[in-house]
Amino acid sequence: MWPLSRSLKPKQLLPLNGDETLLQQTAKRIGLKVELSRLYTVTHESHKFEVKGQLAERYPGALHNVIGEPVAKNTLPAIAIAVRKIHALDPGAIVGIFASDHAIDDEAAFFAAWDAAMRVAEDGYLVLLGIKPDAPVTGYGYIKPGDVLNKTDAAYPVQEVEAFVEKPNSVLAQQYLSQGYLWNSGMFVLRADVFMSLLEQHQPKMYAQINAMGDQPTLAEYGALESISMDYGIAEMAAKVAVVPVDMKWSDLGSWESIYQKQPKGADNNVTRGHVVASDTSNSLLWAESGVVSTLGVDNLVVVRTADVTMICDRNRSEDVKLLVNQIQDRFPSMTETHLTVQRPWGSYTVLEEGGHFKIKSIEVSPNSKLSLQSHAHRSEHWVVAEGTATVINGDQVLTVKTNESTYIPAGNKHRLENNTDQPLIIIEVQTGERLTEDDIIRYDDIYGR
Amino acid sequence: MWPLSRSLKPKQLLPLNGDETLLQQTAKRIGLKVELSRLYTVTHESHKFEVKGQLAERYPGALHNVIGEPVAKNTLPAIAIAVRKIHALDPGAIVGIFASDHAIDDEAAFFAAWDAAMRVAEDGYLVLLGIKPDAPVTGYGYIKPGDVLNKTDAAYPVQEVEAFVEKPNSVLAQQYLSQGYLWNSGMFVLRADVFMSLLEQHQPKMYAQINAMGDQPTLAEYGALESISMDYGIAEMAAKVAVVPVDMKWSDLGSWESIYQKQPKGADNNVTRGHVVASDTSNSLLWAESGVVSTLGVDNLVVVRTADVTMICDRNRSEDVKLLVNQIQDRFPSMTETHLTVQRPWGSYTVLEEGGHFKIKSIEVSPNSKLSLQSHAHRSEHWVVAEGTATVINGDQVLTVKTNESTYIPAGNKHRLENNTDQPLIIIEVQTGERLTEDDIIRYDDIYGR
Repeated sequence: MWPLSRSLKPKQLLPLNGDETLLQQTAKRIGLKVELSRLYTVTHESHKFEVKGQLAERYPGALHNVIGEPVAKNTLPAIAIAVRKIHALDPGAIVGIFASDHAIDDEAAFFAAWDAAMRVAEDGYLVLLGIKPDAPVTGYGYIKPGDVLNKTDAAYPVQEVEAFVEKPNSVLAQQYLSQGYLWNSGMFVLRADVFMSLLEQHQPKMYAQINAMGDQPTLAEYGALESISMDYGIAEMAAKVAVVPVDMKWSDLGSWESIYQKQPKGADNNVTRGHVVASDTSNSLLWAESGVVSTLGVDNLVVVRTADVTMICDRNRSEDVKLLVNQIQDRFPSMTETHLTVQRPWGSYTVLEEGGHFKIKSIEVSPNSKLSLQSHAHRSEHWVVAEGTATVINGDQVLTVKTNESTYIPAGNKHRLENNTDQPLIIIEVQTGERLTEDDIIRYDDIYGR
Repeated sequence: MWPLSRSLKPKQLLPLNGDETLLQQTAKRIGLKVELSRLYTVTHESHKFEVKGQLAERYPGALHNVIGEPVAKNTLPAIAIAVRKIHALDPGAIVGIFASDHAIDDEAAFFAAWDAAMRVAEDGYLVLLGIKPDAPVTGYGYIKPGDVLNKTDAAYPVQEVEAFVEKPNSVLAQQYLSQGYLWNSGMFVLRADVFMSLLEQHQPKMYAQINAMGDQPTLAEYGALESISMDYGIAEMAAKVAVVPVDMKWSDLGSWESIYQKQPKGADNNVTRGHVVASDTSNSLLWAESGVVSTLGVDNLVVVRTADVTMICDRNRSEDVKLLVNQIQDRFPSMTETHLTVQRPWGSYTVLEEGGHFKIKSIEVSPNSKLSLQSHAHRSEHWVVAEGTATVINGDQVLTVKTNESTYIPAGNKHRLENNTDQPLIIIEVQTGERLTEDDIIRYDDIYGR
């Protein structure tokens, strides 16, 4: 979903399908069925604070169990570090494993399929949710369903999995569609002890590594795990594996086209977000995250404008945006990694301007929040308070800096920026020095455990 | 040419046709034929400093006679205030009157036509340059040429004007094309005394007003003139009026399509400017004034990205961008008036961010330049030097403020920012107050006479 998603801002953290982010929508959906204190969320360490921030904002009950991966791995290690915690509490617990970046419009169907899956999971099955396809899509793996295991709910019979099938070409996809194959959604339901047994049986090395880990895996521990998916590592080898066919208006929101399809259409069949002025424009997705998007006499386009880039593509080509991202990565690498505005546990900052030896940031500190006690080897910083009141530790001093007052932090000085008020605090920071990179930071104390 | 042109940044001040602005290209062209000290440039007062800055940068010889219009009028008043000055110096001088925002690729043809026009102008004729049309364009007025007056240069016979014809519909335009009519370019050659006589004869009131004016017309004097064009006010009524047909690869650069046509094409017939990443993109004009423009699978588009807006239109519709501008004006009026970066005689400033009661600007002061001595009733300002060394008058004090030092200007304090070095000076300004508008300024002293 570039240019809105970046490696440090993946799509589950974006409001792509309404006012809430996909992560928030997922937490909301799960919370309709289970106590949110029983939700475990696994995310990369670099996203953990934003994940927690988004949950805190809407679904604070889900904050109990947010687990950071010290390094990105595939799905099996991520699932394993969560399931082993559940297993330690209750080996017979039935675990549902769901992606945080999918859209599910028919939640009643989702819950009914989940219930059906649970009935078979009780008996030791690994159960997948299989999406009933509505088109011969080549981008998903398929599942060939077999004999019916259970049909307590006539609308949701649970079937044996006869075969897992790789992503097909378009001819095969057409056959699969006509033969009743299902899309593999990557959503699983199984008992915690069944998961641990399957892991022991099929990935004995990972099983041993997982059991030897402390409560929060270190980079060394987690980095040593094999990067393998739940499908390849366990599901495709399990003897007792089943699938529940479900039609729940599901989308993995894998392209701008899928966003367009999901959103309500306005005049001329356009979907717009932000400041858009469209004239003689039809069938288009026009998304202004920053500034204004203005169009005239165009049709069937995706236009996404952020603070640093505008991406324009034919809607039919939105699957190929990844090709564009490769080219962008070569020429403007930071543009695939991060936005000019970056979320932090204490608020956010925006890079306003960069010169040869200076950088200007706007820093917003949330009420009653503080940055780490830190120092920089290479840069000095000048802070002007544009709005609110700052408490600043600068070397040995503790200062109160009010609107339009300023303070200067020489390179090497230990310092800390705090907002001890109930109002927002906005600081303009002018950095100067020979080296102005985010990694020039020594943290001495941090309430967020960084 | 929105969004690149704004009312405070008209197209002659933009580099739309190469590295130089259209104004600079015009000064260069004129300078190949006459001493630049004999060039008179008439411009709106609000553009005068940027006009002078652009001329100073490349063609300082043209700085002698830049005349500011206190208020925008049509072409006749603007021409009259320049020609009366030339007339005062030399009544028999032949004056060439040229727009500053046209492109002329075949300069030899232009000079030859100008020479031919001069030969007839000597005899008291008002002579127009008439462009030989290459298409039945409906956007220009046409001239019907008549008997040949002079053919000293066989390639450039000067002909009587038989009729001036209004902008035609497409059927008429096709007829005019086949009948050898010419486009009215709005370029004129005539004697200064002939101009003054024609003015006296056809616009006696304006003639009297012009003659009563001081050296620099006041707002009251200039504002009282009728807003009428050279064509309506004089040319169409003159008895002795002639035209030189010329094919000089002329364009008035009236639309993005004309810019596309003029520029050399790169891969896939695209014209690009700035940071552009284009994939499977053809026949398009892709212009990134700020940030990056990235396209995939599109054809025949104009895309222009500035710091505040991205405009996307079908190339065939680029004449209709004015319709879009009307809509933008309703919803985002400042976006049709000015850019986030604004040129000033002493350098430029860029609005980086605006909040409820604060505004952040980056201010660049050219070497050996200074702002006016000024004060603000409603806002305080905090200045941090990001690069260079500033000399600051702040109330009674004169301070030297170096990189990463700062100073605070309370509301009401007289202050002045100076760069007395040979290096650029970059200041970050944080304004706070209840009212943060550019018109909250009292100027006490200004080296640019504002």
